[in-house]
Amino acid sequence: MTSREMPAAPARDLPSRASPYRRLSDGGLEHLEILDQTRLPYQEHWLRLHCLDDAVHAITHMQARGAPLIGLLGAYGIALALWNDASDPALLSARARLSAARPTAAHLDNALNRICRRLTPLPAADRPKIAWREADAIAAEIAAECAAIGQHGLTLLRQWSEKRSGRPLQIMTHCNAGYLATPEYGTALAPVYAGLEAGIESHLWVSETRPRNQGLLTAWELARMGVPYTLTADNAAGLLLLQRRVDAVIVGADRIAANGDVVNKVGTSLKALAARRAGIPFYVAAPGETLDFSAKGGADILIENRDGEELRVTHGIGQTGEITAQRQIAENVAVYNPAFDITPAELVTGIITERGIAAASAADLARMFPDAAAGESA
Amino acid sequence: MTSREMPAAPARDLPSRASPYRRLSDGGLEHLEILDQTRLPYQEHWLRLHCLDDAVHAITHMQARGAPLIGLLGAYGIALALWNDASDPALLSARARLSAARPTAAHLDNALNRICRRLTPLPAADRPKIAWREADAIAAEIAAECAAIGQHGLTLLRQWSEKRSGRPLQIMTHCNAGYLATPEYGTALAPVYAGLEAGIESHLWVSETRPRNQGLLTAWELARMGVPYTLTADNAAGLLLLQRRVDAVIVGADRIAANGDVVNKVGTSLKALAARRAGIPFYVAAPGETLDFSAKGGADILIENRDGEELRVTHGIGQTGEITAQRQIAENVAVYNPAFDITPAELVTGIITERGIAAASAADLARMFPDAAAGESA
Repeated sequence: MTSREMPAAPARDLPSRASPYRRLSDGGLEHLEILDQTRLPYQEHWLRLHCLDDAVHAITHMQARGAPLIGLLGAYGIALALWNDASDPALLSARARLSAARPTAAHLDNALNRICRRLTPLPAADRPKIAWREADAIAAEIAAECAAIGQHGLTLLRQWSEKRSGRPLQIMTHCNAGYLATPEYGTALAPVYAGLEAGIESHLWVSETRPRNQGLLTAWELARMGVPYTLTADNAAGLLLLQRRVDAVIVGADRIAANGDVVNKVGTSLKALAARRAGIPFYVAAPGETLDFSAKGGADILIENRDGEELRVTHGIGQTGEITAQRQIAENVAVYNPAFDITPAELVTGIITERGIAAASAADLARMFPDAAAGESA
Repeated sequence: MTSREMPAAPARDLPSRASPYRRLSDGGLEHLEILDQTRLPYQEHWLRLHCLDDAVHAITHMQARGAPLIGLLGAYGIALALWNDASDPALLSARARLSAARPTAAHLDNALNRICRRLTPLPAADRPKIAWREADAIAAEIAAECAAIGQHGLTLLRQWSEKRSGRPLQIMTHCNAGYLATPEYGTALAPVYAGLEAGIESHLWVSETRPRNQGLLTAWELARMGVPYTLTADNAAGLLLLQRRVDAVIVGADRIAANGDVVNKVGTSLKALAARRAGIPFYVAAPGETLDFSAKGGADILIENRDGEELRVTHGIGQTGEITAQRQIAENVAVYNPAFDITPAELVTGIITERGIAAASAADLARMFPDAAAGESA
């Protein structure tokens, strides 16, 4: 039975616009609002960004998060900065402040480099308008990359669903690599949404993702998109995978080394190890921009070590809907809190990019992204 | 350099009595108090158990936890039950209620069987006194088993510390398999404490152990015992192990199948997978009573599925020292909350028992525990 002959659920329309930001134009005046992700899943609060300070604050305090979305916020941050002063010094200062807001994401500097390259030759008077236009263009391009990742991933979902004889695919993910982390569609979740449109039903296994619990963002997002899911402790992944109750694992990536080693949210490597032992495909979905050909392997990538208070203090919701904080570990308890880990390339079945699915190997990644690879080896 | 020649820290005296329960005799009147583990690490509260109801409540609500300790509480529960009525019906009824308090722990039924076998032939008038004496004997035997596990494990610590040239050993554990889970010494932590007495310093990597956070119990216990430790999210184990920053993993077990498959707190298998890939020894420390020769493999053991509220509601401490609860996940979110997972025998370097260190294989386990193995194959 080929995938075309498969009994499939009727295709569904996705929510018309599922995005963690919105652009408004009001009589020539441009606005940007973001969904405050520090309040999710408890409160759906749209936050208007008025100025550079607002954009820097949103990135630093993770009101917007996810490498592609952070890049986008960098570009819009420049546009916001130029409202009052579009001079060269203002542009340089805005770029420096945004770049320092969260220094680990390559996407942020890439977006800042691009928009500044575009604006610098222009007279100051033209810059504000072009800045918004360029940021919009970057948003559209990243969204298109995510859509392409969805379509390439869909070919995998079709293969897997052939073996499931109509039952929903069981997909495990980690952290949030959905539309909340991008302008639209997401990366790891893009194939799931593409499947939904194509009539392939999935059920998602969502890990809590301690210490910051981004799994709760994923649960919120999936509920909104009408995708069934089950939330588990991160610890449950071994049981689910070793018992082969999962068809495939798809995660995002923060940085991928030239050899295919994947740096992603801490805990990713544990899922990769269990998937490998159980013979379950383990895919990473990420735009080519995530590739860092300057890093030969994962050991060359710095792992961000974050404040132990992220583990010591948990968040939740009070009876009247207010967001609450609770100390579960005393301040004097020694805590180690790495934000990422390194999944060896050998454990990665493939990397789903906007150009297609690459093997997690130096040769295949350089073949698919010769432009980026050449830049580094030059 | 042999371990005898190693430069070692001066041997330390352990706290004189580190135990999660205490026995008091007051003019012939016997009492039992337990450390309420639902209040740890926030409050050190000793709870007097007055009657059968108290004992059943303590087991059901996990005021006392850990398979060996639960077994012990079963025996003392019988003693408490017989204060007022030591008749046959009272004995049978007490046994049934205790057995149902937490039906998965083999240790509980073993202890109940033993004490009832001892009491049943006796006249009712003699039973109360003998019940306390028998429960005390069970406690002493389990403590001796744990001490023996510590000494057998110490031979491993000596080997590992030869490679460390005086630096503290880096030991990773999961959940709490320390003295809090036993009458004394613990299982997984017994070798660490034996090392401390012998002058071998260890630093422990302690996993939070979501959803019930027993890692916080381990942290509390280690602090009390003067053992340095660092607490991490469960997700951090992959990074630590794959970067080979750990010398060995030692965990406890709730049940071990005849073939050496280990059922232990959910998340254990993920650490075993990462340890295997990194070539780091992965040991399970458990008394022979944990072996279940009626289960051929891990798949024959029922995995307890617990209430999703354990994941949805977290606990902590308020500013005035009160224990607080916080909802982090809405009640209508679908949650899967298995309490245990299955670590395949192939990933287990060895099983540290009171009789010595066995390979995780049917042959070696039957060789070391021929009595128990014969009981099942008969």
